[in-house]
Amino acid sequence: MDRILEVRPDDLLAVVEPGILNADLNDALAAEGVWWAPDPASRSISTVGGNIATGAGGLLCAKYGVVRDAVLALDVVLADGRMLHLGHRSVKGVTGLDLTSLFIGSEGVLGVVVGATLKLRRLVPGTVHTIAATFPDVRAAAAASSAVTAAGLQPSIMELMDATCLAAARRLLGLDPGTDDALLTIQTDGAASAAEADAIAEVLRTAGGAVEVSGDPDEGERLLALRRAMHPAMESLGTTLIEDVSVPRSRLAEMFDEIARVEREHGVTIPTVAHAGDGNLHPNFIFDGPEVPAPIWDAADDLFRAALRLGGTLTGEHGIGVLKRRWLADELGQDQWDLQRQIKAVFDPHGILNPGKVFAP
Amino acid sequence: MDRILEVRPDDLLAVVEPGILNADLNDALAAEGVWWAPDPASRSISTVGGNIATGAGGLLCAKYGVVRDAVLALDVVLADGRMLHLGHRSVKGVTGLDLTSLFIGSEGVLGVVVGATLKLRRLVPGTVHTIAATFPDVRAAAAASSAVTAAGLQPSIMELMDATCLAAARRLLGLDPGTDDALLTIQTDGAASAAEADAIAEVLRTAGGAVEVSGDPDEGERLLALRRAMHPAMESLGTTLIEDVSVPRSRLAEMFDEIARVEREHGVTIPTVAHAGDGNLHPNFIFDGPEVPAPIWDAADDLFRAALRLGGTLTGEHGIGVLKRRWLADELGQDQWDLQRQIKAVFDPHGILNPGKVFAP
Repeated sequence: MDRILEVRPDDLLAVVEPGILNADLNDALAAEGVWWAPDPASRSISTVGGNIATGAGGLLCAKYGVVRDAVLALDVVLADGRMLHLGHRSVKGVTGLDLTSLFIGSEGVLGVVVGATLKLRRLVPGTVHTIAATFPDVRAAAAASSAVTAAGLQPSIMELMDATCLAAARRLLGLDPGTDDALLTIQTDGAASAAEADAIAEVLRTAGGAVEVSGDPDEGERLLALRRAMHPAMESLGTTLIEDVSVPRSRLAEMFDEIARVEREHGVTIPTVAHAGDGNLHPNFIFDGPEVPAPIWDAADDLFRAALRLGGTLTGEHGIGVLKRRWLADELGQDQWDLQRQIKAVFDPHGILNPGKVFAP
Repeated sequence: MDRILEVRPDDLLAVVEPGILNADLNDALAAEGVWWAPDPASRSISTVGGNIATGAGGLLCAKYGVVRDAVLALDVVLADGRMLHLGHRSVKGVTGLDLTSLFIGSEGVLGVVVGATLKLRRLVPGTVHTIAATFPDVRAAAAASSAVTAAGLQPSIMELMDATCLAAARRLLGLDPGTDDALLTIQTDGAASAAEADAIAEVLRTAGGAVEVSGDPDEGERLLALRRAMHPAMESLGTTLIEDVSVPRSRLAEMFDEIARVEREHGVTIPTVAHAGDGNLHPNFIFDGPEVPAPIWDAADDLFRAALRLGGTLTGEHGIGVLKRRWLADELGQDQWDLQRQIKAVFDPHGILNPGKVFAP
């Protein structure tokens, strides 16, 4: 693996080139008993450099953190060709301003990442337990997931599918599409996996769920099948704009209420899956044809503003790019937006790096 | 507690004013079953705002992270009086540049923190186990601490005292000062505390340590007494300049070799305690009188450069302030130093915030 320059299990770090794929890195690290925690759904096709540039998240974030929590140091090339080394190989380090963190999620507007020193975790043995629980409606499922977090339980994965998602996934798998129910798919890992799974199942039953639990890998895959069918199921409904709002975990049920309101008021269908453990929702706006029609953007606008009202953000893990530039100042405020532009200008005074991205011209 | 504006155990967050003392905050949070992990040794007299401004660390960092890992959002006032809200209440959020992280550890040169949304952890029940292990010399103790980390064990606290520290602490407590031995004081916490303590004790015995373990609180305090006597013991030796280098964990034994070399070559005494779990060392330069004499700074200079050679940093958790300004460019490189000054100028064009701090005039 020639893009992995160094692996130090004793220091829990690896030095890599940015072009290595996330999944390839973790395959190689497994042999050393360590792993890099960020797990975007795209991990088999996305690079570590891309994960850093977007500040990527994934399914495991509530328990294992996001990219920001998993990078020690970066080598970057600035717009004028100068190369800088940012950060430390040590766990701690507070010399000057934290430019490593500033680069994480900066979407290529400050410089180009050409090397990364990653903070690893040790692989912990234990049987993964999988839980699937259906609820009469999405609000009940969202409330149940909040109850799991509030009970002090920490699943590795906690995914929520609303009724439209669930029906589409069932149809794709040749199953009865069901009623208006919603699904929580949960996994626990580590040494206490079985006890945690039992405790979570109890919380879910108390919250009105129909619950299945298994520590058997094949049975676990069966329980995961509907969640895994999510993206192809969305494609079966039409063209999809996958959105990415995030709210405090306790507001998840209210955010689903807002999505239902936006569906009603704008006459659009927005099947939604959520990383319920961390409050990150992916509403899927469904439409026909290759271009996003204007009414879909109106509905998205309404939905973004609802997330902001609930104390959330218009992007949990996908970033701003081009599509969300026009909402950035709504979240940041004009003063902070101006300040961020000025910081970009310090790194890239002629605006040659990713022009037009993040900050609208 | 009128400086705590909001506590949300369900969202694992608290909103506070920066003037609240770290220990007072954690006393209040305990009633809600949650805590804020950063635990600088100064926690009974240091404010959360100060902890954020310095990017503080502490004893628990290897297991529970530093301040950078424990802040979701900040309210800041800029030099021109404008107020900004940075960050999110949600776990995830990637809107624009991560100015929250940029403010953490910025030592007051970018703006004034007037509010903070903190990321909390849930208090986990379990008996704390304490381990004390003496080794024939500091190199053996450092190697043993690296072996604990390399074995995949994660103590909550792992403190290392060298021979001079240990002898001074023993004298202060009226004990025999001993030979040239060194001490590791370790704690485990959480549900698996007892099993982890046993596993760590086994690693330490294999590494040549004389080991005591206890799950009894009074006995634990007895085992901690020497470590707790550390700072008064240093004061009994003379005036102390407490330094703060950090190295990758695997280089800890080499860093102790370098400290012994600096002691020999400069004719100074540098008793050293280390947060061995994260590679952060506090060498104590001992001298007479109120001012740091020039030869002590020469020795410190030699020691800082040794830490940098080992892939470390000249400050793990204390920051740059005034005393370390002249070494900052040595670690950052001139290009990065210039760039950091330019970023400061974006926030504070007239240089009125903490003038002369961090960046030498």
